[in-house]
Amino acid sequence: MNIILLDENEIRDNRVVLHDRRSEHIRRVLGARVGDRLRTGIINGARGSSTVVAIRGETVELATSHDGPPPARPATDLLLALPRPIMLKRVLSQAATLGVGRIFLVNARRVEKSFFSASLLHTENLRQQLLLGLEQAGDTLVPELSIHARFRPFVEDELPGLLRDCPVRLLAHPGPYPFLSKAIELPLLGTTVLAVGPEGGWVDFEVTTLQQAGFIPFSLGPRILRVDAAVPALLSQIDLLRQL
Amino acid sequence: MNIILLDENEIRDNRVVLHDRRSEHIRRVLGARVGDRLRTGIINGARGSSTVVAIRGETVELATSHDGPPPARPATDLLLALPRPIMLKRVLSQAATLGVGRIFLVNARRVEKSFFSASLLHTENLRQQLLLGLEQAGDTLVPELSIHARFRPFVEDELPGLLRDCPVRLLAHPGPYPFLSKAIELPLLGTTVLAVGPEGGWVDFEVTTLQQAGFIPFSLGPRILRVDAAVPALLSQIDLLRQL
Repeated sequence: MNIILLDENEIRDNRVVLHDRRSEHIRRVLGARVGDRLRTGIINGARGSSTVVAIRGETVELATSHDGPPPARPATDLLLALPRPIMLKRVLSQAATLGVGRIFLVNARRVEKSFFSASLLHTENLRQQLLLGLEQAGDTLVPELSIHARFRPFVEDELPGLLRDCPVRLLAHPGPYPFLSKAIELPLLGTTVLAVGPEGGWVDFEVTTLQQAGFIPFSLGPRILRVDAAVPALLSQIDLLRQL
Repeated sequence: MNIILLDENEIRDNRVVLHDRRSEHIRRVLGARVGDRLRTGIINGARGSSTVVAIRGETVELATSHDGPPPARPATDLLLALPRPIMLKRVLSQAATLGVGRIFLVNARRVEKSFFSASLLHTENLRQQLLLGLEQAGDTLVPELSIHARFRPFVEDELPGLLRDCPVRLLAHPGPYPFLSKAIELPLLGTTVLAVGPEGGWVDFEVTTLQQAGFIPFSLGPRILRVDAAVPALLSQIDLLRQL
């Protein structure tokens, strides 16, 4: 936890009382004492620091101060074929750590139907994973997350509007495609959306549909990555191509 | 499992009989039948394909054929401060999937001493994680893995010899350092070793010692990654810098 995230509604007159895992983290991991300053942030808002004003049993009280501007919205969105729950959990948190603006969880032929009924898909559970990732990164901006159970209507009818301000559209897919660095103009400029397929990959129809929606396919090379390696690998490659 | 890995000693007259998780994978996940050809490889050897010649209960018999050259040794080595066991497990498998030649697991000030007594550190357990990663990647070359419980003697006395043919030495470390793309000459040529620190980072003394051993520090930016995101992120950035 590299930042303690607070909900705006928890704060009254610049004071907040914590008695959940954040309080436990402050007491046990940080070993904080009254008077210590901790790095805190308001969810979807400014970062700053807060001072421990009281520790009573399992409760920690902070005097908050958040006066910086909120962090900038990450320039990459993620379109992800819904992975199995244990993997989704990890990938959501990783994506929030690495920094994405929006996450579109979509259905695909090779996504098992049962994944859509997983209890993890309840909004509060998904949000928890994103917050864990932000706490790691030191960020406050929760990625916007949406779930789309029908691939074709989503990609054909909804996505064009959603991607109006997203000129760079990339599709990771094994096959006779160039590497990412050869598939696009460098340095990478502009908001980017990255599509990552399910275990077993996208089927041909899905590749074609995404290509028609402006996605450029690229290959990661001959090694086949699991989604929890592919997402950090690709998001960080995109970051790097922005820095050239 | 994108390749079924066989030990040379298991094969007699181009036949192998499997009755472990590989057999289960062939029967249950692949749903293979007699006559089907499967992608197989010899651990640290050639890849090829094998034909299912018999399925009896939980046992699968294959007629093997491996005539390609062994895959090329990956051009990147990983020097990793020993992470907590659950994370180590994941990172070893990820590193093998992404492709590394050698893995040096080292001690560091912020590594908990108990991590060195974890049962995961038994050679056979470590090897299992590496094989899982190779099965995912479709590779056969097991990274060479070594464990170094004393940081300073290892880095000062042993590492120079081990890195004789490894000209590019990179040290991921938060701080006022350039991004990876600005820290080195592009495109990246030559064998590379990447050093990744423990949770909480390297201490100053360790950074200095690694710099004296020729490591160039670079920054990943303001977001702090967990090791299971940092390793795929950085290994794939290094791959990308080789392709420019």
